[in-house]
Amino acid sequence: MRIARIAHAGTTAHAVLDADTADLVADPFAAPSAGGGAADGAAGREPVRLGRRLPLAEVRLLAPVEPRTVVGMAHNTGPADRVRPPQAFLKPARTVIGPADPVHLPDGIGRVDAEAELAVVLAASPAGHTPDTVLRTVFGWTVANDITARDLQGADPLWTSAKGRPGFTPLGPWIETDLAAPDDTEVALALDGVPLRPASTSGLARGVAEILCHLGGVLPLGPGDVVLTGAPGEYGPLRPGGRADATVTGTLTTPVATATAPVATATTPARAGGPR
Amino acid sequence: MRIARIAHAGTTAHAVLDADTADLVADPFAAPSAGGGAADGAAGREPVRLGRRLPLAEVRLLAPVEPRTVVGMAHNTGPADRVRPPQAFLKPARTVIGPADPVHLPDGIGRVDAEAELAVVLAASPAGHTPDTVLRTVFGWTVANDITARDLQGADPLWTSAKGRPGFTPLGPWIETDLAAPDDTEVALALDGVPLRPASTSGLARGVAEILCHLGGVLPLGPGDVVLTGAPGEYGPLRPGGRADATVTGTLTTPVATATAPVATATTPARAGGPR
Repeated sequence: MRIARIAHAGTTAHAVLDADTADLVADPFAAPSAGGGAADGAAGREPVRLGRRLPLAEVRLLAPVEPRTVVGMAHNTGPADRVRPPQAFLKPARTVIGPADPVHLPDGIGRVDAEAELAVVLAASPAGHTPDTVLRTVFGWTVANDITARDLQGADPLWTSAKGRPGFTPLGPWIETDLAAPDDTEVALALDGVPLRPASTSGLARGVAEILCHLGGVLPLGPGDVVLTGAPGEYGPLRPGGRADATVTGTLTTPVATATAPVATATTPARAGGPR
Repeated sequence: MRIARIAHAGTTAHAVLDADTADLVADPFAAPSAGGGAADGAAGREPVRLGRRLPLAEVRLLAPVEPRTVVGMAHNTGPADRVRPPQAFLKPARTVIGPADPVHLPDGIGRVDAEAELAVVLAASPAGHTPDTVLRTVFGWTVANDITARDLQGADPLWTSAKGRPGFTPLGPWIETDLAAPDDTEVALALDGVPLRPASTSGLARGVAEILCHLGGVLPLGPGDVVLTGAPGEYGPLRPGGRADATVTGTLTTPVATATAPVATATTPARAGGPR
């Protein structure tokens, strides 16, 4: 099942998508009301239908979730990384943008790479779970583009300014609740329409269950939080006016704005940028 | 003026505090309704009184804000750090706890330090501002304890597992909207009732305006986000059963639980821990 967040007639909603309709549902990440709802959110996650259907052509897809926490796995791109201890990095929740939302490349930022990744959307904290049970805390799966200012990583060993720029976490286009083989799913990236070398999540140093067990032991996580599992395939640089298409459980398209980012003002909080 | 978040009779609210009453106000960080409210949130931030007063003795203070982003300044503790470029780190928003909330030290985590800091609560993004204007984006000031697992920082150069544990960001006890000299304010820490050497924010490598201008250029920030400015004074280790009192614009007390953190289950998402 595909669950999306949509914009329609000036409001936002959640919806189950089929080929040509959006069937509105209650927010699947809202806290259960007192006395009702599965506490761990993972079991019985059948969405609550609101009895209203819209033609898909009349809605716009938004980022499918508004996470409080976005966490990625560092050094998880191949078997060689297995020798390192697992390491995670954080991206600001406000970096999340939706399908077709443009990213602006700040002036003078140097090389900025697109990285296509399988992203986990959590239904509950993975803390206390074992590899055998931790997948029960997964609500579903989406596609992430973990945009990274490569040239800044060297001077910023904490990666904050390299990974945390406005618009650097496209997510979408929807949450797929059923994924047969999370640890053997193809991850592909095309830049300006040219496909790069794809790969499978089987190439990651650590698979989903191991990642979630690690994170559950070190960070507080909860419903709607997003885990980026790492980029097993080829990645490459964005260019102004270009486009990235990341394909895993759907295709997430991110246009790159032609102009570099304007210097934002205090009245446009979602846009920062400009020379540091 | 002191603005707090409070719990009372099973609900939460915002309130202006005086010596013995809590005067309920509308959520000062809610998005302004269409057609009303100052877009940048900083001007005219007089809280909207709801006409209900509670005796202070009947309410419990919560963390005074629920940030989407918590960002701290690395290497900002003294003039020597001035030679490094400014660097920021992120803490998960779910690590925030309130005054008197206990922190649990995970088993085997090694040394865990309390760090008393002046924290900025933003009314708007600092992006696009100059040092002369950026303080207009400040909603107010609170106290942070930037709890840090010191022994983990070496093995985790990204600091995620060292700074991001559950309960590692106590904030409070309230937001002070008026602070005469943010760059010359005393910061003090006591551990188990024993004062450590205090210092002034004047000892930080970079002051508040410079910090905010830097962050506005690299991260998306907005209303309610929290910036930890760095610990100018002495810091020291927490011990099970002990207590940290951080004093800047108020005193923020954090008891340390006697037992190490239990291994959490999926039904208690706010608590993680245990051996990794």
